[in-house]
Amino acid sequence: MKSHTEYLTFNTRKREEFVNITAQVEEAIRKSGVKEGMVLVSAMHITAAVYVNDAEDGLIEDIKEWLRGLAPEKDYRHHRTGEDNGQAHLKNLIMHHQVMVPVTNGKADFGPWQQVYYAEFDGRRAKRVIIKVMGE
Amino acid sequence: MKSHTEYLTFNTRKREEFVNITAQVEEAIRKSGVKEGMVLVSAMHITAAVYVNDAEDGLIEDIKEWLRGLAPEKDYRHHRTGEDNGQAHLKNLIMHHQVMVPVTNGKADFGPWQQVYYAEFDGRRAKRVIIKVMGE
Amino acid sequence: MKSHTEYLTFNTRKREEFVNITAQVEEAIRKSGVKEGMVLVSAMHITAAVYVNDAEDGLIEDIKEWLRGLAPEKDYRHHRTGEDNGQAHLKNLIMHHQVMVPVTNGKADFGPWQQVYYAEFDGRRAKRVIIKVMGE
Repeated sequence: MKSHTEYLTFNTRKREEFVNITAQVEEAIRKSGVKEGMVLVSAMHITAAVYVNDAEDGLIEDIKEWLRGLAPEKDYRHHRTGEDNGQAHLKNLIMHHQVMVPVTNGKADFGPWQQVYYAEFDGRRAKRVIIKVMGE
Repeated sequence: MKSHTEYLTFNTRKREEFVNITAQVEEAIRKSGVKEGMVLVSAMHITAAVYVNDAEDGLIEDIKEWLRGLAPEKDYRHHRTGEDNGQAHLKNLIMHHQVMVPVTNGKADFGPWQQVYYAEFDGRRAKRVIIKVMGE
Repeated sequence: MKSHTEYLTFNTRKREEFVNITAQVEEAIRKSGVKEGMVLVSAMHITAAVYVNDAEDGLIEDIKEWLRGLAPEKDYRHHRTGEDNGQAHLKNLIMHHQVMVPVTNGKADFGPWQQVYYAEFDGRRAKRVIIKVMGE
């Protein structure tokens, strides 16, 4: 069994920002030498998500607006700790912090339009994603 | 390490349709010869989901109605591209496109009532699911 | 390839209760002897979730209240079967029943604040979580 681990660091300019990381995931697979296996792509923070969907700017704005509706800014109990990011935690829970990407013949085995995104909900500081490839 | 990959193709009659694929997942485990490991079951599209829950018709209708409330049909920015499936993308994000099934003693190690479903939100055309078994 | 499987059993006093299981996940990794790999932590029930987020009591109450808003108690079709837990099924779908934890150098490779939680939505009876470690 082979394994290969990489860490990506993001420091977004805006508090909320979505970043297409498909190329980095594919590059990690290439470096791993794994031909058959799986890749875990997982945010190392509890106010960011990793998801698979379309690289379409209109849809990305739709997703941001939709999440603001489902997890609105408000006075959460969590804010008694001095934080102001309750909504970012809830967005992380809806969107989830990780995906598993299948690897077949040394490549990410995606369907049409599948792209991996890092969704930052509380940025403007260094935050990490782990990519771990496992297989043979 | 052993691995085994299969692709299922769905062409649902209705735009929205949920299909129980537990038997196909179990059959892929059997064919793989894996006794200890994991199976990734992942939609290869961004307008369909794979989830684990109950094979109960009333609940399935409850889930469809609940999703229509959380991700209603409306005039999404995404529709400026000519698409009309914005709500299907959002339903994919809530429900997620993949699950990992544990394999123990050569069988899917499910609890009572756990069944694997393919949830189509924009069907009436050929769409695929990948099943990848990995282990020993 | 090494693998190691454990089952945790919960019997919560309250119907809805969130339990931090990070120590149990770390202990399973230690017992497995796996240095590089992944752990699947998955609820074996369809009315409970496993998620990764903050060990902060205020936030946990925020999550419970938020879920009651998104998946309210009501007269679901599912209740015609004699059940009264429709909302617990829907909360399972939002929160998801499983996570994959990366293992690096024999430890759970978590970022700051990441903790694994079992979220019970229909407790007061014995329910299980499977932990399966895989790697080398």
